[in-house]
Amino acid sequence: MVDSTERLPMVRVTETGRETTVDVVVTEFPLTIVLNERPVVTLLCSPANLDYLAVGFLFSEGLLRGEEDIREIAVDQEAGTVLVKTKKAILPSSKRLVASGGGRGAPFAPLNKQAKVDSSLEIKTSEVFALMDDFIRRSAVFRATGGVHSAALCDRGGVLVFNEDIGRHNAIDKVFGQCMLQGIQTAGHLVVTSGRVSSEILLKVARRNAPLLISKSAPTTMGVMMAGELGMTLVGFARAGKANIYTNEWRVLDGR
Amino acid sequence: MVDSTERLPMVRVTETGRETTVDVVVTEFPLTIVLNERPVVTLLCSPANLDYLAVGFLFSEGLLRGEEDIREIAVDQEAGTVLVKTKKAILPSSKRLVASGGGRGAPFAPLNKQAKVDSSLEIKTSEVFALMDDFIRRSAVFRATGGVHSAALCDRGGVLVFNEDIGRHNAIDKVFGQCMLQGIQTAGHLVVTSGRVSSEILLKVARRNAPLLISKSAPTTMGVMMAGELGMTLVGFARAGKANIYTNEWRVLDGR
Repeated sequence: MVDSTERLPMVRVTETGRETTVDVVVTEFPLTIVLNERPVVTLLCSPANLDYLAVGFLFSEGLLRGEEDIREIAVDQEAGTVLVKTKKAILPSSKRLVASGGGRGAPFAPLNKQAKVDSSLEIKTSEVFALMDDFIRRSAVFRATGGVHSAALCDRGGVLVFNEDIGRHNAIDKVFGQCMLQGIQTAGHLVVTSGRVSSEILLKVARRNAPLLISKSAPTTMGVMMAGELGMTLVGFARAGKANIYTNEWRVLDGR
Repeated sequence: MVDSTERLPMVRVTETGRETTVDVVVTEFPLTIVLNERPVVTLLCSPANLDYLAVGFLFSEGLLRGEEDIREIAVDQEAGTVLVKTKKAILPSSKRLVASGGGRGAPFAPLNKQAKVDSSLEIKTSEVFALMDDFIRRSAVFRATGGVHSAALCDRGGVLVFNEDIGRHNAIDKVFGQCMLQGIQTAGHLVVTSGRVSSEILLKVARRNAPLLISKSAPTTMGVMMAGELGMTLVGFARAGKANIYTNEWRVLDGR
């Protein structure tokens, strides 16, 4: 288990004075992902589950189509690298979209190529609230430091896969990377995130055919628009007992 | 004045039922920055002050040394572009660092080339708390939508320049871009941000020679380490009445 936090000395000041103490600070780790001996990107991330992150990132960027493309994965925690080799040659383009407060974009997977998410999944409001309870309870690093995002793959009954990272994009990539490596189905399931839902986040979830995305935070206009166009249900500001449904509300049913 | 939010229909659910209503959602706008007729990047941002964002971004990336490099700036809000022309030819490399939850990195300005920030600026704790009060009061879009970040350049007396954006990197780039275009000095001043302080954010502020960075949120380990190495004072979790000082605490004085 890699530690995603460090204890650092710190001075706490208030209106009445100061005291020297120790704070738990979230680790920022530079990870270089190398695809077929070519460095693709350096991500700043939390240093746990680097293989999940690498695989999830490469999938989000359209550089892997699935687990079946992967020949070999080698994580070197010391060097800060994950080396991924594919069965067939894949050449990353150097063009990329870079985005606000998170953004890496999905230049290889534009919206006009993304198929609608076709799923008859429905969930009760009481199940949404129970999921959020469970999700928030698991966010241990966040509680300690106030500095990380969480993401989870869920079904109606609860959390199936859970990951944390200082980046909201990374947290979701880790979830989907883990699903790919462990053969866990994402189609027809729910995704929960602590972070804002921008167009990029929405697109990541659409690419895994998960029809329902629930966030503790706000969506953006492009996130809402895309969710509508792709047939997805987007829920924001979800907490125990309250949530906003922006698109395709039919998937969320009244009652317990 | 460009509107950085839109009103969208939404269904609010609680444990007792649902109601159709309208929510204020923060706008996500794709901006392409073109430097000397070559597209450098597409940022997802809030659609206000695009000239500030373009100039601040190019400076952060090391593609502008200062206002004196700029020959012409043309904002086309409809097309979603800012065209910047420089007096001398500048050729952007295509290499870039891409980062967690925000990250665009500063591939042209690595830490080992960044000089220490030399400033004898000091501030009283009561002034820090008053600044945070002022800063939080100004964050109007955040209050409406829960979805944007703010950043400000300040002196001990108050806020000098204030900007908001869906991205915490963009908000700081807008502040520094405005300073460059309006000839406002940043050296020896304070920067306040609503967002997490990662290494990239720290480096942006160091490049403008501002010795004191105050955040409402958490720092990362690399943010703290860099602040120490560059002689900067890093304050986190600052609210009215409480703050954590991670480095160079001598700049923050007890008393009113």
